[in-house]
Amino acid sequence: MSLLVTGSIGIDTVVTPFGKSENCIGGSAVYFSMAASFFTPVRFVGVIGDDCPFDLAKVFAGRNVDLAGLEVRGGSKTFRWKGSYQGDMSQAITDCLELNVLSEHPPVVPEQFRDSEFVFLANTHPTLQIQLLEQLKSPKFVVADTMNCWIDRQTDELKRLLGKINVLILNEGEAKMLTKNDNLAVAADELRKLGPKFVVIKKGADGSMLAGENEFFMLPGFPTKEVKDPTGAGDAFAGAFMGYLASVGKTDAKFMRTAIAYGTVTASLVIEGFSMSSISAVGKTVIDARLAQLRKMTEF
Amino acid sequence: MSLLVTGSIGIDTVVTPFGKSENCIGGSAVYFSMAASFFTPVRFVGVIGDDCPFDLAKVFAGRNVDLAGLEVRGGSKTFRWKGSYQGDMSQAITDCLELNVLSEHPPVVPEQFRDSEFVFLANTHPTLQIQLLEQLKSPKFVVADTMNCWIDRQTDELKRLLGKINVLILNEGEAKMLTKNDNLAVAADELRKLGPKFVVIKKGADGSMLAGENEFFMLPGFPTKEVKDPTGAGDAFAGAFMGYLASVGKTDAKFMRTAIAYGTVTASLVIEGFSMSSISAVGKTVIDARLAQLRKMTEF
Repeated sequence: MSLLVTGSIGIDTVVTPFGKSENCIGGSAVYFSMAASFFTPVRFVGVIGDDCPFDLAKVFAGRNVDLAGLEVRGGSKTFRWKGSYQGDMSQAITDCLELNVLSEHPPVVPEQFRDSEFVFLANTHPTLQIQLLEQLKSPKFVVADTMNCWIDRQTDELKRLLGKINVLILNEGEAKMLTKNDNLAVAADELRKLGPKFVVIKKGADGSMLAGENEFFMLPGFPTKEVKDPTGAGDAFAGAFMGYLASVGKTDAKFMRTAIAYGTVTASLVIEGFSMSSISAVGKTVIDARLAQLRKMTEF
Repeated sequence: MSLLVTGSIGIDTVVTPFGKSENCIGGSAVYFSMAASFFTPVRFVGVIGDDCPFDLAKVFAGRNVDLAGLEVRGGSKTFRWKGSYQGDMSQAITDCLELNVLSEHPPVVPEQFRDSEFVFLANTHPTLQIQLLEQLKSPKFVVADTMNCWIDRQTDELKRLLGKINVLILNEGEAKMLTKNDNLAVAADELRKLGPKFVVIKKGADGSMLAGENEFFMLPGFPTKEVKDPTGAGDAFAGAFMGYLASVGKTDAKFMRTAIAYGTVTASLVIEGFSMSSISAVGKTVIDARLAQLRKMTEF
């Protein structure tokens, strides 16, 4: 089934205890597409300024990512993020955020993308997420991500978005913040009451969970001994999750479980190097090998 | 196989967001024995003062716990702990600790217990743990627990203990503290270098992991929607872990995985009520039913 993603493209500067990566490529839609492209063709929608130093066609060379939805907006500046991680690197600290082109109107979804069936609305302002979704004809399976600043400042818009999606993916802290409940099993129930039939809660190194009316699944994180840069792990998780589901054309819980396992191992590859370095160096066989390892490490 | 436990018996006062439980029965050996007795007979070794208000024979009535190793020491006072939990209740705050009889010489292991094959040294001063272990003839499988205050203050003695045991069970924070490493997979490797062939790291609601030379197993926590009092969860985890292994008389990794799953679900029952209230109200069928649920919730 066709898979469309819309989200950010960024110029990232990241500092971790293991080093620094300056002005490297980042952004939710980029990490997502890299991960999803292991499984299925990706339709990419995003916007950069005319200052963007990256050639996305080169970034995705040899991968099945259709950049027809990439807008280079004259006179605008590309989104920039400077962040750092300390200690166990479970939390990103935003040192500097320049929304730039992301604070303007959303990019246009090209005509040939409007029949997309699987859609991922990567983290951005919930109003933009809704506006992008409204450009599509009849999406069958819509998944969205969000983050703390929208939960804080755009609660009503976010709740409006939640009524329009099938699955919400968010992290542990965001789930607790949005529901004001510290028990994740209860928080998942509360989130489902707001609209999405399924909720995926990511817990970093501690894994993730999937909750639905008759479904509850938990999976530990893949134990990576060399964590260099956690940036993009969540977007790569979503990319593999959606890429796998679109590739099999299924959305029932059984397939979502496998999709979460693929998300987990793909994210584990991203964090082993700065920016895209580790994920862009491997093939699907490495991902499949980790999936088999994860299965072996969790069976009892 | 015979199972011996030695650890504390306490008078606990616990405050959680769900209420308060004053002067109730607690202590590592008590929670351990309650959990282990679902699986196998337990040989109990511990000491109380003559002020202890609890009749342990009544506490364990109808359960297979042999109290021949319970010493009531005249003129001494029973161990007391006052603690509280806040927020997600993942950390106990010790408000008051009176070691009392635990700061004196250890109890004597009765002659008829000295041939015990499976031994659990519940958390206490590592010197006491070694002295208790030395009273046994030829234990086959020795597992020990520890906690932050001994890691801090008795590092050398603790390291001496680690050379004498087969499995170390400890929690995430303790593993990081003892190894000065924030990556749990690496911390587990470091801990094994200190002696134990296997290490079990407990992560509270986030589950647990087992690491050995050719073994790596991870299991999420059981999703309990009603957490009232986490006290004793770790000891009950260890009790079910050891109780199951002693009942099957096996210690290879495959059985340790099942033992960890039993530990997980038994601990989930303990935290649903204050003190022993919930765990003492259920039968083995409830534990087995949760094990089946946990298996279903983690398969992919």
